[in-house]
Amino acid sequence: MKAAEKLKAAIRDIPDFPKKGIIFKDITPLLQDARLFSETIEALAACCRDKPIDAIACVEARGFVFGAVLAHTLNVGLVLIRKKGKLPYATHQVSYDLEYGTDTLEVHQDAVKAGASVLVVDDVLATGGTIAAVYRLMEKLEAKVAGALFLIELSFLHGREKIKKYPVEAVITY
Amino acid sequence: MKAAEKLKAAIRDIPDFPKKGIIFKDITPLLQDARLFSETIEALAACCRDKPIDAIACVEARGFVFGAVLAHTLNVGLVLIRKKGKLPYATHQVSYDLEYGTDTLEVHQDAVKAGASVLVVDDVLATGGTIAAVYRLMEKLEAKVAGALFLIELSFLHGREKIKKYPVEAVITY
Repeated sequence: MKAAEKLKAAIRDIPDFPKKGIIFKDITPLLQDARLFSETIEALAACCRDKPIDAIACVEARGFVFGAVLAHTLNVGLVLIRKKGKLPYATHQVSYDLEYGTDTLEVHQDAVKAGASVLVVDDVLATGGTIAAVYRLMEKLEAKVAGALFLIELSFLHGREKIKKYPVEAVITY
Repeated sequence: MKAAEKLKAAIRDIPDFPKKGIIFKDITPLLQDARLFSETIEALAACCRDKPIDAIACVEARGFVFGAVLAHTLNVGLVLIRKKGKLPYATHQVSYDLEYGTDTLEVHQDAVKAGASVLVVDDVLATGGTIAAVYRLMEKLEAKVAGALFLIELSFLHGREKIKKYPVEAVITY
C-alpha cells in the first residue's frame, strides 16, 4: 500500500525510549509536515468508509491528536478518555494492569448515548491493555463498539489478540 | 457574537473542580456533539484568517484536541508540547512556577524551522503561566510567535497580562 509506505518512511525510530531495549516509533515527523499530516488523516479516514460511526473515542495524550482530527473529518462526536482525576463530570472508571502496578481510565457518563456506535482510535497498538480497558468503558456506556483503529500496529507484541472481540485495523504494521 | 454565545451556552460549569472554590469550565459537551465541535473549530479558524501561520503549537492534553484539528483545517504543521520525559527525540526545555512547585515543558528541537510563524493554541487561558513558558520554547526554536489563540479566556485571572508580548485572541470570554 503506497500511502502507508510513505508514512512509514517518515516515522522515526528512537532506540532505548522510554527505556533500554525498546525502539520507540516517533510519529511527530508526520505531524510537523502539513502534507504528511493530511495524508495520515486520509489513510485513517479511508479505514472508516464502510463503518457506521456515531463517535470516536480516544485516550490522552497522543490519541487525542488523531481521534480529534478524525472525528472532525468524519463529522462525528468525540469522546475523551483520560487518566483518573482529569475529567470533571461524573465518570465511569476501569482499572487495568500494567507491567508494574495498575492504571485507571475514566470517561464521562454522558459521553455518548446508549446504543451509539463508537470507534476507538489510537496512535499505536502495542500490548492492547489500554484498548481492552477502553472497550470496557464503552460497554459501561452501553455503546456499540465499532472496533479499534490505529495508525501503527506493533504486531510482534500481539496486542490484537487482547482486543479481537471487535474488528481491529491499522494503517501501518511493524 | 452569535456563534460564541451558542458555544458558551454548551459549556458546563463544574463547581469545586479540581479543588474547592474553583468553577471548572467543562468543554466536553462541545466535543461530543459533532455540529458544535465543527462550529467550535470554525470559530477558532475564523480568528486565523489574516494571520500568516506555518504551524500550530499546543500543549497536552486538551490543547492537542483543538491544536490538531485547527492545524489540519488550516493545512499547517502541528507542534506538540509535552510534560518532561514524554517526547522521545532531542528537546528544548523550559521550567515555570506553579502555585506549588514547578513544571517543565518540552518541545522537539526539530519541531519547526527557524523563522517559521507559529500560533500557540489552547483550550483555556487561565493565569497564562503555561503559555508564557510555551513562548519561551518557541523562542528557543527561533520561531516567530504569531500569537496565542484560546477557545476560552478567564479574564478575571488576568492571564493576558502575562502573555501580551504577542497578540492574544479568545473565542469566548468569562
